Amino acid sequence: MAAEGAGRVTIADIAREAGVSLPTVSRVLNGRGDVSRATRQRVEELLARHDYRRPAARAGHQANLIDLVFNDLDSPWAVEILRGVEEFARGSGLGTVVSAVHHQAPSAQQWLVNLRSRSSDGVILVTSDLAPELHTELSRLGVPTVVVDPAGVPTYDMPTVGSTNWTGGRSAVDHLLSLGHRRIGMIAGPPTLLCSRARLDGYRAALELAGIEVDEQLVGHGDFHHECGFSEGVRLLGLDDPPTAIFASSDEMAVGVYEAARQHGLRIPDDLSVVGFDDLPQARWSPPPLTTVRQPLAEMGRTAADTLLQLVRGETPQTPRIELATQLVVRSSTAEAPAAPARGRRAPRRSRAARTGPR
Amino acid sequence: MAAEGAGRVTIADIAREAGVSLPTVSRVLNGRGDVSRATRQRVEELLARHDYRRPAARAGHQANLIDLVFNDLDSPWAVEILRGVEEFARGSGLGTVVSAVHHQAPSAQQWLVNLRSRSSDGVILVTSDLAPELHTELSRLGVPTVVVDPAGVPTYDMPTVGSTNWTGGRSAVDHLLSLGHRRIGMIAGPPTLLCSRARLDGYRAALELAGIEVDEQLVGHGDFHHECGFSEGVRLLGLDDPPTAIFASSDEMAVGVYEAARQHGLRIPDDLSVVGFDDLPQARWSPPPLTTVRQPLAEMGRTAADTLLQLVRGETPQTPRIELATQLVVRSSTAEAPAAPARGRRAPRRSRAARTGPR
Repeated sequence: MAAEGAGRVTIADIAREAGVSLPTVSRVLNGRGDVSRATRQRVEELLARHDYRRPAARAGHQANLIDLVFNDLDSPWAVEILRGVEEFARGSGLGTVVSAVHHQAPSAQQWLVNLRSRSSDGVILVTSDLAPELHTELSRLGVPTVVVDPAGVPTYDMPTVGSTNWTGGRSAVDHLLSLGHRRIGMIAGPPTLLCSRARLDGYRAALELAGIEVDEQLVGHGDFHHECGFSEGVRLLGLDDPPTAIFASSDEMAVGVYEAARQHGLRIPDDLSVVGFDDLPQARWSPPPLTTVRQPLAEMGRTAADTLLQLVRGETPQTPRIELATQLVVRSSTAEAPAAPARGRRAPRRSRAARTGPR
Repeated sequence: MAAEGAGRVTIADIAREAGVSLPTVSRVLNGRGDVSRATRQRVEELLARHDYRRPAARAGHQANLIDLVFNDLDSPWAVEILRGVEEFARGSGLGTVVSAVHHQAPSAQQWLVNLRSRSSDGVILVTSDLAPELHTELSRLGVPTVVVDPAGVPTYDMPTVGSTNWTGGRSAVDHLLSLGHRRIGMIAGPPTLLCSRARLDGYRAALELAGIEVDEQLVGHGDFHHECGFSEGVRLLGLDDPPTAIFASSDEMAVGVYEAARQHGLRIPDDLSVVGFDDLPQARWSPPPLTTVRQPLAEMGRTAADTLLQLVRGETPQTPRIELATQLVVRSSTAEAPAAPARGRRAPRRSRAARTGPR
């Protein structure tokens, strides 16, 4: 051990050579954001040049790997969470093993077999409803585990990282109210998920605080995916007294509403305002750019990795449940409520494209 | 060790018998290109006859991990490739370590440090322009490597998996020609990348075969990202004699054109047809759903993982360069060419949203 450590550079050496404090080197090592770009670069160069390794890693007891497990890799937000986890892990000298278990026991088994055939310092589960056997087995193996939980499932007995869904829902509707909208449609997520419930409750709270009774006709549910946003959008815009604005609780459903509006001959935001939820990169690219509630997905990934490494080091995280703040991002899909109801302004257009619909 | 090795042929035995150097056998084993066909064939025959297997594989020293290295995780196609690699690797009992090196030497160094601190059975690089030091170091470490190469960089001396960019470009333009379009704009990728060149050459070939001279005013370049699609779209639609259709060589640039069209008051596909390239999931969600050239990204990932595991098992891949077929997917963003030029049909709209633009 002594021989192995001899001649090895320490954090203090790096700090001295870089002319920065010890906590600054530690921040760079831990992938934190509050370091200037120039300092980060200088410290990273020194760390690389001296082939710096953490004491635990040099002693050879660490796998230098963490596992990141998704149900599916088909959601654009998976890669956002991955970005955050990978960045933090790499900054800490760890590799990130990514797996998708597809809601299926055989896939989860395959992953567990692989996990036992190598080692892992800890696991981050990203999920709404992972198989319970996974939790049991991870518990049995004694592998530190953190859950990134955008869906808000509260029953895990392990640290979770989520975001403020209720506040996010409320801020979306407050924004529409401030633009003069009174008939506001809502496309919520699956009723079984707590995050759907929280966003919907935020919608209800905002309306009720503004003295507006909730019209249950204006509330629908989807599965967060495009097709549901489209079909619920078609239903809402076909009502006798249609909404002038729609809040969809995912960006994907919001662009489904765009397509429904296009097929109804409605312009966004002139005839219809739309707000999404997530702020995926795609939100900026929607024509017009989407006003949405930002979920800090990459930051949630970083926080989960940070929390996991605390567990790995034998520390106990400050709180078993972290909720990061959501934030309204106003772009071009929201505008003042039209004076007349939208459907009265322009006849639905039935072009070739309209009949074709999304595939 | 002796017992284990007894009767087993070594690389040195093969080299002696083939009358070549040891590094040459190593190059053949790693599927590299810089070996003559005759030598490769002789060495492969000997490897097969003696049932040569890598020492690590036969002694059970496998890491049960492969590494997948991206420049960036901010592109939606990264996750498509990851899906394919992860699925194949998990099915083979292997974990997939994902890293992003951000075009930066310090990040690549961090990754290499991590790689040396554990083991890896092989590496898949996904990249247009990874640092040359990475290639050198991977070569030195003797780690089998395959390149997934949507960008078409031809200089690697290791197996690569790409797709048929020229044919894809041609099929996009043939489709527009069949709809009666004659003035077809093209937004190509960065001129430094071979895939950009191939798609652009496909565009030129389709036009020339149809007897249409290429108007250089109609050809622009972008960086595959949304903003460039938007700004080139604005330029093309502002020409005195604007195109009736635009082929953008990425889906992201194609939806940038959607926004340019929206700000010009043009409807897609009635006033302007648009074709993309990639077929990311987002293409289906664009209003209207985007006609595009499908690159089989997940399949490219699977093929790369398959090829890599052949190398790991000591087999030599059939061909150092695999190109998977692209395919035109017709949705709702393309229609017959309008009788009159687009700009004459409807005055540009200058609404609040139009002035705001994409952010």
